[in-house]
Amino acid sequence: MSIRWGVMGTAGIATKVGAAIHNAKGAELRAIASRNLEKAQKWAEDHGAEKSYGSYEALLGDPNIDAVYIPLPPSMHNDWAIRAARAGKHVLCEKPLTMDVAEAVEIAAVCESKGVQLMDGVMWVHHDRTALLKKILTSGEVGELRRVTSAFSFNWGPTVPTQNIRAQKELGGGAIGDLGYYCVRATLWAFDEMPTAVFARARYNHNVDIETSAMMYFSHDRVASMDCAFSMQARSWLELAGTDGSITIDDFVLPANERESWYSIRKGFGKQDSRSVGPCIQEVKMIEDFSALVESGKRDSSLPKVALDTVAVCCAILESAKAGKAVEI
Amino acid sequence: MSIRWGVMGTAGIATKVGAAIHNAKGAELRAIASRNLEKAQKWAEDHGAEKSYGSYEALLGDPNIDAVYIPLPPSMHNDWAIRAARAGKHVLCEKPLTMDVAEAVEIAAVCESKGVQLMDGVMWVHHDRTALLKKILTSGEVGELRRVTSAFSFNWGPTVPTQNIRAQKELGGGAIGDLGYYCVRATLWAFDEMPTAVFARARYNHNVDIETSAMMYFSHDRVASMDCAFSMQARSWLELAGTDGSITIDDFVLPANERESWYSIRKGFGKQDSRSVGPCIQEVKMIEDFSALVESGKRDSSLPKVALDTVAVCCAILESAKAGKAVEI
Repeated sequence: MSIRWGVMGTAGIATKVGAAIHNAKGAELRAIASRNLEKAQKWAEDHGAEKSYGSYEALLGDPNIDAVYIPLPPSMHNDWAIRAARAGKHVLCEKPLTMDVAEAVEIAAVCESKGVQLMDGVMWVHHDRTALLKKILTSGEVGELRRVTSAFSFNWGPTVPTQNIRAQKELGGGAIGDLGYYCVRATLWAFDEMPTAVFARARYNHNVDIETSAMMYFSHDRVASMDCAFSMQARSWLELAGTDGSITIDDFVLPANERESWYSIRKGFGKQDSRSVGPCIQEVKMIEDFSALVESGKRDSSLPKVALDTVAVCCAILESAKAGKAVEI
Repeated sequence: MSIRWGVMGTAGIATKVGAAIHNAKGAELRAIASRNLEKAQKWAEDHGAEKSYGSYEALLGDPNIDAVYIPLPPSMHNDWAIRAARAGKHVLCEKPLTMDVAEAVEIAAVCESKGVQLMDGVMWVHHDRTALLKKILTSGEVGELRRVTSAFSFNWGPTVPTQNIRAQKELGGGAIGDLGYYCVRATLWAFDEMPTAVFARARYNHNVDIETSAMMYFSHDRVASMDCAFSMQARSWLELAGTDGSITIDDFVLPANERESWYSIRKGFGKQDSRSVGPCIQEVKMIEDFSALVESGKRDSSLPKVALDTVAVCCAILESAKAGKAVEI
């Protein structure tokens, strides 16, 4: 059996995920919805979807849809994720799940009560490389993990285009939700626990954070550091520093190559060991992972939990940056 | 004419710098001093110095010495750098110059009044690669520099050996002075200004910081981040992130190879350009730079200034870590 997917919105990212649904085992692209029927029909033609709907509600009313992918602006996630759950659809929601902790908690609670699976759309965690890195971390090859340092940024030009969703506060925009979400997730993924507090600093443009730096405190005096920005070109790296060595990934959010991806292990000064991982298309893997979980009939509560945790840390980072002092979590 | 050098102390690092004096153009190794004459004589034999002295005072009394290198523990720098300056010797002092701002200011003031040059021993700044990177930064090739991120750490084993100078508070030990000094210097070197404030967090062992993380705030909302530790193996990297690209160096404190050193420039996701720099032995270059300056009869006030600035930032970092809040500089 294949999980039948509906896509709620024709945002740019929907093209990529739509293709991933086509390419994923155990998944099929049933329908696309837009508030504009013509737009939906055009998208269905271009990207191949059986049905087109002129409203998200209409798509949610389709009994032949098992799961929805929500690529709407963050500010609309709470409303539509909840409506989807109430309609009995499993929910894959684009990141940031929300930029408000209470909203995220509400989504998770409704999904739980409706017995549907919730997951946020963080593709890199589904990559084969990510699973391998976790194995290396737990194997003790680099000793005890002491520090996670990460960066994700690109240059949007001298002034961030204010008409873009990602630059509009009221739509849930900002560097931390759009880019830093990945860094925060990587940190939680690596340490497998919540920080006890964060300290952050941000640069703003029209009240939207466009360059954000944070430190996160973990148990056993461990510290993580991250930065994200709409102003620095092409950085997407993650360093996992252990007592006996460190792992570095130059392209953790999106591996440069689908046929082969890389990471490095350093155990001594001047000694770097580059290793590769075979072919993997992470967005296809994400759809396959979610579809298989839905198909299994089981629910994985760790998925909404880590999404809520990521939202909580991102929100604490923004709060700390505004307050100019550490914020406990 | 060659500058005649005296080395005050037989610490491990003196072996490296002694060899550098031998290999540097315009420099000769005149004398070694130890509080133990036999030790000095043995060192003179092993490493080749014309004269041996059983006290630092005796070496400073030698009229045939132009410049001294001070590899003593940080807590002794103030006393002996000042005595050296009063004896009319130019002073190359091992880093950290001091771990106390007032002490550093006093050293610089005495050197100034005695007309002798003061410099701290930070080898990597003298490497050809460093000069080239500065050129790249000022050329605008990576746009406006927005962020500096750096790390320097090694693993001293599960417990830092408390008999080591670097692990003794009263001798000026601690990760920030021993390792973080390089990261702080790299940040000041890259931004060419002082931070307005710092925020830091540290882990301690017997009141000595052994893992220290800091954020530094610069003008135009720019942020730098660094960490140093005696607990994580073999990290020595520096990232200079600009609006149009970033420069990364994997071994900024000590290039892995004297024949060729490397750096990378990234201007787009998945596009990393590795470039190499020709042969350079940075400690030899440091001695040559200092000797040539002394020989010129000119004084370079930027050298004591950046040493004082580095001390001030390191001390503010320790203060912030203790206070748990940002400290203005």
